[in-house]
Amino acid sequence: MHGCWLSGRSVKVLSILKMIEPVESKSYFLRSLAVFHLICLINFSSVEARTRHNKWEVKYEYKSPDCYKKLTITINGRSPGPTIFAQQGDTVVVELKNSLWTENVAIHWHGIRQLGTPWSDGTAGVTQCPILPGDTFIYKFVVDRAGTYLYHGHYGMQRAAGLYGSIIVSLPDGVSEPFSYDYDRSIILNDWYHASTNEQAAGLSAIPFVFVGEPQSLLINGRGDYNCSLSTTSGSAAGFCNTTNPECSPYSLTVVPGKTYRLRIGSLTSLSALSFEIEGHGMTVVEADGNYVEPVAIRNLYIYSGETYSVLVKADQDSSRNYWATINVVSRKPATPTGLAILNYYPKHPQKHPPTVPTTGPLWNNTTSRLAQSLAFKARQGFITTPPLTSDRVIVFLNTQNKIDGYFKWSLNNLSLILPQTPYLIALKENLTNAFDQGPPPDGYDFANYDVYSVAKNVNATSSNRIYRLRFNSTVDIILQNANTMTVNISETHPWHLHGHDFWVLGYGTGKYNISSDWRKYNLVNPILKNTAPLHPYGWTALRFRADNPGVWAFHCHVESHFYMGMAVVFEEGIEKVGELPSSIKGCGESKGYHRPYGSYSWSLIYQSGCSATAVVAVEYLFCNLRKRFMILQFLKDFCSTLLASPMLIAFLVDAWLEEELDSLRIESVEMGRGIWKQYLGTAQDLAQRWKKERLKVFNHGEFGNHGSTCSPSGMSRDAIDPRINWEPGLSYHLPGISCLHLRGRELN
Amino acid sequence: MHGCWLSGRSVKVLSILKMIEPVESKSYFLRSLAVFHLICLINFSSVEARTRHNKWEVKYEYKSPDCYKKLTITINGRSPGPTIFAQQGDTVVVELKNSLWTENVAIHWHGIRQLGTPWSDGTAGVTQCPILPGDTFIYKFVVDRAGTYLYHGHYGMQRAAGLYGSIIVSLPDGVSEPFSYDYDRSIILNDWYHASTNEQAAGLSAIPFVFVGEPQSLLINGRGDYNCSLSTTSGSAAGFCNTTNPECSPYSLTVVPGKTYRLRIGSLTSLSALSFEIEGHGMTVVEADGNYVEPVAIRNLYIYSGETYSVLVKADQDSSRNYWATINVVSRKPATPTGLAILNYYPKHPQKHPPTVPTTGPLWNNTTSRLAQSLAFKARQGFITTPPLTSDRVIVFLNTQNKIDGYFKWSLNNLSLILPQTPYLIALKENLTNAFDQGPPPDGYDFANYDVYSVAKNVNATSSNRIYRLRFNSTVDIILQNANTMTVNISETHPWHLHGHDFWVLGYGTGKYNISSDWRKYNLVNPILKNTAPLHPYGWTALRFRADNPGVWAFHCHVESHFYMGMAVVFEEGIEKVGELPSSIKGCGESKGYHRPYGSYSWSLIYQSGCSATAVVAVEYLFCNLRKRFMILQFLKDFCSTLLASPMLIAFLVDAWLEEELDSLRIESVEMGRGIWKQYLGTAQDLAQRWKKERLKVFNHGEFGNHGSTCSPSGMSRDAIDPRINWEPGLSYHLPGISCLHLRGRELN
Repeated sequence: MHGCWLSGRSVKVLSILKMIEPVESKSYFLRSLAVFHLICLINFSSVEARTRHNKWEVKYEYKSPDCYKKLTITINGRSPGPTIFAQQGDTVVVELKNSLWTENVAIHWHGIRQLGTPWSDGTAGVTQCPILPGDTFIYKFVVDRAGTYLYHGHYGMQRAAGLYGSIIVSLPDGVSEPFSYDYDRSIILNDWYHASTNEQAAGLSAIPFVFVGEPQSLLINGRGDYNCSLSTTSGSAAGFCNTTNPECSPYSLTVVPGKTYRLRIGSLTSLSALSFEIEGHGMTVVEADGNYVEPVAIRNLYIYSGETYSVLVKADQDSSRNYWATINVVSRKPATPTGLAILNYYPKHPQKHPPTVPTTGPLWNNTTSRLAQSLAFKARQGFITTPPLTSDRVIVFLNTQNKIDGYFKWSLNNLSLILPQTPYLIALKENLTNAFDQGPPPDGYDFANYDVYSVAKNVNATSSNRIYRLRFNSTVDIILQNANTMTVNISETHPWHLHGHDFWVLGYGTGKYNISSDWRKYNLVNPILKNTAPLHPYGWTALRFRADNPGVWAFHCHVESHFYMGMAVVFEEGIEKVGELPSSIKGCGESKGYHRPYGSYSWSLIYQSGCSATAVVAVEYLFCNLRKRFMILQFLKDFCSTLLASPMLIAFLVDAWLEEELDSLRIESVEMGRGIWKQYLGTAQDLAQRWKKERLKVFNHGEFGNHGSTCSPSGMSRDAIDPRINWEPGLSYHLPGISCLHLRGRELN
Repeated sequence: MHGCWLSGRSVKVLSILKMIEPVESKSYFLRSLAVFHLICLINFSSVEARTRHNKWEVKYEYKSPDCYKKLTITINGRSPGPTIFAQQGDTVVVELKNSLWTENVAIHWHGIRQLGTPWSDGTAGVTQCPILPGDTFIYKFVVDRAGTYLYHGHYGMQRAAGLYGSIIVSLPDGVSEPFSYDYDRSIILNDWYHASTNEQAAGLSAIPFVFVGEPQSLLINGRGDYNCSLSTTSGSAAGFCNTTNPECSPYSLTVVPGKTYRLRIGSLTSLSALSFEIEGHGMTVVEADGNYVEPVAIRNLYIYSGETYSVLVKADQDSSRNYWATINVVSRKPATPTGLAILNYYPKHPQKHPPTVPTTGPLWNNTTSRLAQSLAFKARQGFITTPPLTSDRVIVFLNTQNKIDGYFKWSLNNLSLILPQTPYLIALKENLTNAFDQGPPPDGYDFANYDVYSVAKNVNATSSNRIYRLRFNSTVDIILQNANTMTVNISETHPWHLHGHDFWVLGYGTGKYNISSDWRKYNLVNPILKNTAPLHPYGWTALRFRADNPGVWAFHCHVESHFYMGMAVVFEEGIEKVGELPSSIKGCGESKGYHRPYGSYSWSLIYQSGCSATAVVAVEYLFCNLRKRFMILQFLKDFCSTLLASPMLIAFLVDAWLEEELDSLRIESVEMGRGIWKQYLGTAQDLAQRWKKERLKVFNHGEFGNHGSTCSPSGMSRDAIDPRINWEPGLSYHLPGISCLHLRGRELN
């Protein structure tokens, strides 16, 4: 149990001060001697892994990522936000302060499966209520697997306002990748609009419909290059566009000749499918969405919004010059200039432009080439997780463009998703059956009669908040079926992203999926695992996954405007296995009454407990001297009355604790049950000794630092406290008159 | 008690079905006969007054109020929003749906004192939590006095985005105004920015500070005239500015020659003080902020943000032409063109421009003229409410510009207000003492040494959320003391608005207020009552009010950016007299756990009540057949166990009820106490007869319309219900096994 005492901010410590008059009988009112118990709970099961704490402030600031000055949602002043670095098995904590003025926010950790923490997925309306302006919310999750991941806003269209970034998870110490490289670098791709997200949403919600259109520029690591002379077409005050602004100088990736670089490339475009290439340099794909792939040598990487890839690039070209790294729009007719970065051969100047004309990429409408690359990726030998050979359920999703009540929408099997006011996770866990339509959405469409090559006929589509409920641990096949939009000869590319899981990509095909025969084409030997896969124009994509992650998970097209227009479904699985929800995710829709944050109770609760005034004052005094005056969780009542059947006072002394961690604690204790408490308690002597140390910290203030304003509970000074309470160091903390103190630090559900 | 049964949407009805087995002793388990009681509570005390129901949807839409197309916050598609018309004593209900995408909202009813309903004041952070996107909030308040009032957004800077409108309260039938006119017309003035509120706030929050600057245009009834050729300076895409757009044709006020018009003029400018005049027409001021004033003949009306005036104008000029009505900026050096409307003499074409050049108004920096007009207003003879001759407390507010941590702020006595996460009203009522700094802010400044003519020295100012706690029913004097800003020779005009009260305007002066002598200059004979009064450059304004309205009330400069920068204080008075808060205002900060909306509880609560399963199913069945399945408020427990001491089931049958109305009901019952219940109950025979009708409505669905999806509680059909329950019409509704059912429709605090 070493390493878990209060010893500074880096170690999370929970100590329980138990002032107990030992049991001589089962009577509640025996009194003899005070014994102090201290127990240590946290870091109990994960001594190796570290907690990576990130303190973020989200706000609007003017930024000029493509030289055009625009209000951007930043994290700690940056867009893209800071990269989260962690090691496999670490716990990532993001303490997020919403400093937007009137907008709520939520952030999704894209590719992190949130095993055991479905409430940390960050999907507003699905797994949490949005975070109010001024509020701080704590995300906490384990990154259980090395790889390249993303994060981004998942509320309204805030991702498109610049709220995005990368997560890099390294292997455990002593474990190596199955490929070698000298350095790794992170590259995040985006497209960029000058219209605000409100303006974009206004168009999408208007009658007549106004599409967001093609982006004004493409960004590589948050830098693009807008032609300011065009700026009258999208609003430009004097000085609002400045091509010499260093904020928009191209990203330069400096390489040492001869070295091999692992580029971790992620795309979070709002709309665009991209082709990435580096002039004169081949690339070898080795990772996709956090999973190893059998090495594939390519000249250009097709990457869809929500995907990540690692490619190896060797700096083996003429080192006397620099090279263009470019991104170009594919799949839609491009109206956006090539996005540029510089591959800089050290020691050339990093901003020295290459002598060549940047490539404009492959033909935008070469679907065959993109399909071929999709098909080329296989799981890496030695790292193959074979899928179950059969599935328990097949859901075919036909996507169609529709008009519903005059509004343009996207539908799956004629249902266009509208998120409910109460997030699904809360509604399901708390049995709030009025929160959304409980009926099942359809598992298929009119296979026999629907022509995927015809213009969508716009029949029968409706808005809906129904969800798919999957049998826990069942194997589910998803067939994504593309079709013609409402415009003749147009079928779009849709990158579909599944929250909370990876899926096996069993196959891609063209035309209408044949449910009786196309499964024969599946790759069941070495399919890759991904969390995002493209659905190509007029094609189908077959995915398989195990519904083995208790929670509620969005599955949606990652095109921001398509998601906004309803191109999404939601899966529930094993909701009964989800642990007690943190109260912090609640507070909207029908869950308004489920959340009472820590510290919100007043001392009057103590008076209501029926304890003596002496005890109350003693407790107040004790906790007023802590920086955070959290108190006691409900389960202690059981602990108190049943396990020890003794008068006592239990208090948590909390220093650097996060509210979220206290939540975990409560859940752990519930899971462990009462019996296990005895193990933690140890001998009275042992604990008394430790309490001695703890108590000194509390009263000396030493390790607690500055406690802010001095707290004088009930206007009483220490002197006014019952003189029978011995406040001197030692074992004699004695609180007469306390039976079982029913303190509640918060309202439990 | 007629008129209060379920008889359609227009009549609000509460009926209580009381299935009671009459009392033969005090035992809880006597059973004999079921008696049905129905009672009617609402409309009990206010049979005369009507409820004015308004259903509003707030959203962003593109509007071109000054010909420049811009995202605007609209109400039911309009900006300014719909005018609320009501009669003195009416109850105004505004059912507000927030259809913004990611922004919360709140609306303040400016000039309405909210007697008894401090939670309906609409001031986010003070009296309520902001309303989340997708949520519907119900404001309900009595307009107790005829007059001209306003409403507007009171969250972030949303007022400046177009969220504002007028409230017109007419006199009771048979009562006349003390002046005569033929028609009345409403004119609402505003200034208008092309930058979004996010962009404005970004500048105000930036280091270095960027002021919002002068507005692009001035609006009369939401119409202005921007010079589109200037539009490159503030962003303009092709087609974004169109002077021929009918949305921005000038407001035309058509008058019949010879008739007298009462113009109800209100200003909700973000920044500008205005001078309003009508070419060639004199005006007589007769009302200010809902109070009659002794008639004052003027040529131009100075009007400050937050003020309303009624002026009488006679159409007595040459009727062969039209006339310009103009507004011009005063007090700041104008950089905004004159705002124009047309006084149209019938039958001339309403849009026919007058032959003259519009006036540019008085000299912008003629403070003397503005001060003189302020001094000219007196309460109207016969309608004078004399102020208390002395006050119990004098608070002097010196306003200064400051820099705090590098940010530009406005302070009062060196404190710059930052609203807490938990609205004050909730924090105070619920004793959430951690929600804000409990220390008292200062009642004065360094009178002896501060030179109001010197550039502000920026010493010692801090941000704070402290508030002024006023003794209930005490008389409070407020001295607003102006000073030089941080810029040499600049002192601004600040219109100060007090929520929840009118104040007497006792005097205006120039220079530093002399606390020992200037009170001698007060007008204690016939001072006007207002809710907003200007503080002139380098001057002082003396106000007096009675702290007689239990609640928490903001008092602030009505310049949007000044309020944003902290130029505000908050008063508490009589918090202990505030009734139980509606849960709908809660849900943020430390009040997250205080709100559980209706319908959010699950049926499991009933099972926990210890009632028999039979009773539970019966109740479920009953309520599943109602459109709104609200159930029972806590006080019924008392009613049940104490008043009647009898086994029974009480259910509310609710049709067209608003949640807010249920709240009122609960509060009313608490206020009335138990004794009064007997009056409502009437005789058993009478109530049984009425229940017969009610029950038929419930089970026949007739008057309840479409109930949406059929509800089958616990998967049980009617047939599965205990056959001993007689579901046939009659008096035999018998629910065996029910003792006292502790149903709770919602969590109370």
